[in-house]
Amino acid sequence: MGPAEWVYLNGTVCRASEAMVSPFDRGFLFAHAAYEVTAVFDGKLIDFSGHVARLQRTLDGIDVPNAWSASELEAIHQALIEKNRLEEGFVYLQVTAGDYGSRDFAGPDMLQPSLFLFCEHRQLIGEKARDGVRSTLVEDQRWKRRDYKTTQLLSQALAYRQAARLDRFSAILHEDGHVTEAASANLWVVLPGERLVTRNLGHQILPGITRQAVLDQLRVDGLSVEQRAVTVAELSSAAEIFTTSATGLVLPIIDIDGSPVGSGRPGPVTRRVQSLYYKAIGADLAARAPWLRSEVRADRA
Amino acid sequence: MGPAEWVYLNGTVCRASEAMVSPFDRGFLFAHAAYEVTAVFDGKLIDFSGHVARLQRTLDGIDVPNAWSASELEAIHQALIEKNRLEEGFVYLQVTAGDYGSRDFAGPDMLQPSLFLFCEHRQLIGEKARDGVRSTLVEDQRWKRRDYKTTQLLSQALAYRQAARLDRFSAILHEDGHVTEAASANLWVVLPGERLVTRNLGHQILPGITRQAVLDQLRVDGLSVEQRAVTVAELSSAAEIFTTSATGLVLPIIDIDGSPVGSGRPGPVTRRVQSLYYKAIGADLAARAPWLRSEVRADRA
Repeated sequence: MGPAEWVYLNGTVCRASEAMVSPFDRGFLFAHAAYEVTAVFDGKLIDFSGHVARLQRTLDGIDVPNAWSASELEAIHQALIEKNRLEEGFVYLQVTAGDYGSRDFAGPDMLQPSLFLFCEHRQLIGEKARDGVRSTLVEDQRWKRRDYKTTQLLSQALAYRQAARLDRFSAILHEDGHVTEAASANLWVVLPGERLVTRNLGHQILPGITRQAVLDQLRVDGLSVEQRAVTVAELSSAAEIFTTSATGLVLPIIDIDGSPVGSGRPGPVTRRVQSLYYKAIGADLAARAPWLRSEVRADRA
Repeated sequence: MGPAEWVYLNGTVCRASEAMVSPFDRGFLFAHAAYEVTAVFDGKLIDFSGHVARLQRTLDGIDVPNAWSASELEAIHQALIEKNRLEEGFVYLQVTAGDYGSRDFAGPDMLQPSLFLFCEHRQLIGEKARDGVRSTLVEDQRWKRRDYKTTQLLSQALAYRQAARLDRFSAILHEDGHVTEAASANLWVVLPGERLVTRNLGHQILPGITRQAVLDQLRVDGLSVEQRAVTVAELSSAAEIFTTSATGLVLPIIDIDGSPVGSGRPGPVTRRVQSLYYKAIGADLAARAPWLRSEVRADRA
């Protein structure tokens, strides 16, 4: 896997291998940068307005002016999707606080942001969604404003490296005895009695765009959700666990550090959430997730 | 101020304006990078072995192999000092986790680091050291491993921006009622009764190289130091406050958010510490800090 051929950098479309930034860019020196990842399904951007709104919120939080309107950003996304003939995958966007040819913590009063985008072809509904993934529990060491989507991602990168060393795909973050979220996805837990729980919004977790879209679908479907912090102890009694994110969509977690979650297979609530969200983005369930249709049928029979 | 003309990037010396890195570098995408800043005085690297040892510790902590021996790093520093004819200032070094032409949180098993260095001409003993600087108190929002010197510097950058907006030079960080350190320097407080206190080492603060050098000098001089967390309440009763760092050396803080520290002028303990450390790096006090000699004399008279 890797970026599609064409990327966007400060007004220019160029080959991924030819894109270059200065090491004096504040993104490189200080992690002074916001990012967003928007799923593309059937050539269409998914939940784009949510991503643009969250980008604005992060930029406000990290004191970077937004030099682009929502429609300008959408046009850049669309141009890159067309140039790369992207049918399914995602667009990654990063706004950094800019390059001033020097290193100064404060920087100028008014920052001049830089903009970088790339695409990646990826099957969004695939084997991982069907079979689930295994995970490991890692201490959450992030900074205190996880509600801003910034490139201060070192602790997430280290959590993923730890998971990879254990041959696991996902890392679940915890602190002070409570689960926060997964390393780059929100976490959902089905406790005994089919109680679906996900962490309430706050500084501790990212306000996931897919999380919100799923909440909206669940409301329509009449499924209730508790929003609160789950303890690590509760996690081990979970019947099902799944994550939501722009690139994973709805991914079952079937194992934590060698202990199976519930039956060790994706459960009925997870399947129902997958079904709802896949339909919401316009997926043909019969074609793309036949495993899902049969399980949902079985569940509802 | 800005970088000296010549920088080092992955084996090549080039002009600062021509140095370019890929936006797929893990330093740019994930803040997966370590850095060090070493003072240069009279053309010589100050406390270099301490910086190299701390770099190794950070790299171990962030799972990046060190591809360079201490003597190789020293040779690169020296070459850049000579090329730029640097007499006084600092050398900045950044090791990132490398560029793989794609964005993957975990990355390959064995990372191939990148290396970037630049120099800056700067008067290390100047007006700020003579007159002191004003500061503001900012909540410490950093990640939990501040003992690693990484480019996850967004909260420090934001703290400095907040200070600059208030026309202040320095930001003092606090959390849970206690002072941690300054935004890019260790903090020292003289409490009533000439009790000198600086925070004990741990995950909460950076193990400053200048901090350690000053501790060593103080031990020789017979001045005792308490190492513990100072409360925000204690801070307001401080007779003197100063910071230590590689580029600021020993800087008096004379004001916090409009309240003068002690007399509002650099005090005798601060002057003694400056005198000790400046002598340790080989500075001619009469020539470089005449204000210091008279004050130290007055204090000892």
